[in-house]
Amino acid sequence: MARLLVLYTTPADPTAFDQHYNDVHVPLAQAIPGLQHFDISTGPILTPDGPSTFHAIATLTFADMPALLAGLSTPEGQAAAADAQTLMAPGSQILLFNTHEV
Amino acid sequence: MARLLVLYTTPADPTAFDQHYNDVHVPLAQAIPGLQHFDISTGPILTPDGPSTFHAIATLTFADMPALLAGLSTPEGQAAAADAQTLMAPGSQILLFNTHEV
Repeated sequence: MARLLVLYTTPADPTAFDQHYNDVHVPLAQAIPGLQHFDISTGPILTPDGPSTFHAIATLTFADMPALLAGLSTPEGQAAAADAQTLMAPGSQILLFNTHEV
Repeated sequence: MARLLVLYTTPADPTAFDQHYNDVHVPLAQAIPGLQHFDISTGPILTPDGPSTFHAIATLTFADMPALLAGLSTPEGQAAAADAQTLMAPGSQILLFNTHEV
């Protein structure tokens, strides 16, 4: 399987972020063709030593990397990616990788 | 559910990292009580703009945060965490969070 991880650093206005994320971004991301699983963090993102710099983490799973890239290249994928950019404070990251259960 | 994400930055010796990770670390992590799913990246960790600073990403899933923290506090959890530290080049991160499917 292939995964797209979005790590959002803490935004200037977390309440506005959460509202936009839930009301606008989640439906856009759910429409990406080929998306098999989509989960989002709830509550704080911690490290073993205390709070992290991140406010939210989204995990999107696809069958494989070709399916992930094909999904992102569709109009729905482009719309979700463009919207994500508006939510990504400095230090936020999008990571794409293949993964397998061990 | 709750998730423990380990983002390993590219080590000085990726081949030695991979060997230690697969031969030593995976069995230690698989022994953590309460671990429900464990997947690890294969191949490069990309960003939309090209290579990332990361070499590997591990995703460990537990029923909830109390189960995750309980698992880490066991001798098996402590052994896996101590071994992970030996693999974490500067910039590597461990992130813990609750998550839910949307």
